[in-house]
Amino acid sequence: MTRCIALTGGVGGTKLVLGLTQILSPEELLIAVNTGDDFEHLGLTICPDIDTVLYTLAGIANPDTGWGRAQESWKTMETLERLGGETWFRLGDQDLALHLARRHQMTLGATLTEITANLAKKLNIRHPIVPMSDHPVRTMVLTEEGEMPFQEYFVKNRCLPAINGFRFAGIKSAIPSSKLLRAFEDPALELLIICPSNPFISIDPILKLPGLKKAIENSQICVLAVSPIVGGQALKGPTAKMLKELGLKSDASSIAQHYGKILDGFVIDTKDSSLGKQIRKKGHKVFVTQTIMKSLDDKVTLANDILDFAAGISL
Amino acid sequence: MTRCIALTGGVGGTKLVLGLTQILSPEELLIAVNTGDDFEHLGLTICPDIDTVLYTLAGIANPDTGWGRAQESWKTMETLERLGGETWFRLGDQDLALHLARRHQMTLGATLTEITANLAKKLNIRHPIVPMSDHPVRTMVLTEEGEMPFQEYFVKNRCLPAINGFRFAGIKSAIPSSKLLRAFEDPALELLIICPSNPFISIDPILKLPGLKKAIENSQICVLAVSPIVGGQALKGPTAKMLKELGLKSDASSIAQHYGKILDGFVIDTKDSSLGKQIRKKGHKVFVTQTIMKSLDDKVTLANDILDFAAGISL
Repeated sequence: MTRCIALTGGVGGTKLVLGLTQILSPEELLIAVNTGDDFEHLGLTICPDIDTVLYTLAGIANPDTGWGRAQESWKTMETLERLGGETWFRLGDQDLALHLARRHQMTLGATLTEITANLAKKLNIRHPIVPMSDHPVRTMVLTEEGEMPFQEYFVKNRCLPAINGFRFAGIKSAIPSSKLLRAFEDPALELLIICPSNPFISIDPILKLPGLKKAIENSQICVLAVSPIVGGQALKGPTAKMLKELGLKSDASSIAQHYGKILDGFVIDTKDSSLGKQIRKKGHKVFVTQTIMKSLDDKVTLANDILDFAAGISL
Repeated sequence: MTRCIALTGGVGGTKLVLGLTQILSPEELLIAVNTGDDFEHLGLTICPDIDTVLYTLAGIANPDTGWGRAQESWKTMETLERLGGETWFRLGDQDLALHLARRHQMTLGATLTEITANLAKKLNIRHPIVPMSDHPVRTMVLTEEGEMPFQEYFVKNRCLPAINGFRFAGIKSAIPSSKLLRAFEDPALELLIICPSNPFISIDPILKLPGLKKAIENSQICVLAVSPIVGGQALKGPTAKMLKELGLKSDASSIAQHYGKILDGFVIDTKDSSLGKQIRKKGHKVFVTQTIMKSLDDKVTLANDILDFAAGISL
């Protein structure tokens, strides 16, 4: 009986997901993850957002980098470098094992949904983690230097080229994961939480999947988003830079405006309380709270706040 | 100006190759390597024989196992095991880097010949190492339990199933590496050495490539083989077991007989000197010497002995 679906990208969104897993049972919460960042590299399929969720919920994420595993070793990368291989995308020895396991299951014909469930089980994660789709969607970043695959923009070029848009290659023929679609049809479903992830590259690929917005509308649930922008800045990643390059104001109100009519409520940080009125004017209910999540307590508190906010809206 | 071509499989043959590299210059020696043992695993292309030659000539081979690198670590395999991945084929952290580098170059469209040359260069190897073909040939072992890919027979089933033959999948459409064919046309070429490798699984895939035997005949060079069987036993691997299962005597004479007319001379160990007469009767010149190679000195001595033997035959 899924009560809540969380849509998330990598680090920022996953913090809230971790908070939600402390409150909602594995039956109540479904975590749907962006796969637009996925890419093929060195013969492997890398799923950065799924892996961040897996590692975070398994308690083995590297807290300093925001990607990869804690207590990682780099023997393979060091040797690859000496062999003249591609090392711009850093793959630790343990991280690599996950990609090899995924690749092996792919060659056996398993779907990304099945593979992710298998890996989660091996990592003793009980909450269901569902890739947004089993079909490859690949985010292409339109920049002043031309179009480039997301990881090339993000890692290789360190988000330096100015952007002017995005293209989600493959999205027209991508079907949302059936687990996700089924959850939207669950009569117990009350709430969709858009976690504080980058709206353009982490959430839009999910929302733009064919049939997904329709599924959200049909379900008549409460839809909340949490601003990934606090005090005009992104806590992590290029969201603020992207907003500016797209000619938008780098503040939480731009995020609410971006999501538009789909939102019932929007959660902003106490630092941005002055924006509340303006966002309310656009028709969204606004909840102002502490959204910066440093400790596990912060994450659980924000998750609780959001569930309370949703309950208030639904009443 | 290639004077000598050496055909080799893995460990046994590579010992002699190492000896030859101490005597012949990179211009004089071309090393042609079996790729019938290659296979696709975890999304990577593993080339066990090429890698044994690379690691041996680079001085980084593991002397104890006969495969992989010395001073290897196993972080990725350990993690893969915990994730429920396939770990029956052991890939060390450093070894894995080579497979990833190879895979990356493959995705860029490089041939196996080009990739092997690139890797050899990075490992500071000066002698040319050439895969027998750029087209995939995959040795299938016909056993009492049915046909199985070579590595499944060799590693997963530890050579236990009794064999009754071999099939080299893809060989009919495989063209020998152009570097190898060109070497056979070199007027300076004098000698082909079939190293002490398993004739059925290491050398036959090379000799059975379309056009290769013809190229050898046309070149009118001296062809020598070194017996991989000493005192009825294989020094390494399943050669003796295979001979018995194929209904042949497990001794050096069966090897000479297997190669047949292609051979001008055959090198057997002093332990097998009693077989010399019988092998000579079949029309082969025979050279008896110490063929067991433990030290580098042993390897160089045998290589020198073989070059002297060849010079005597050619006179």
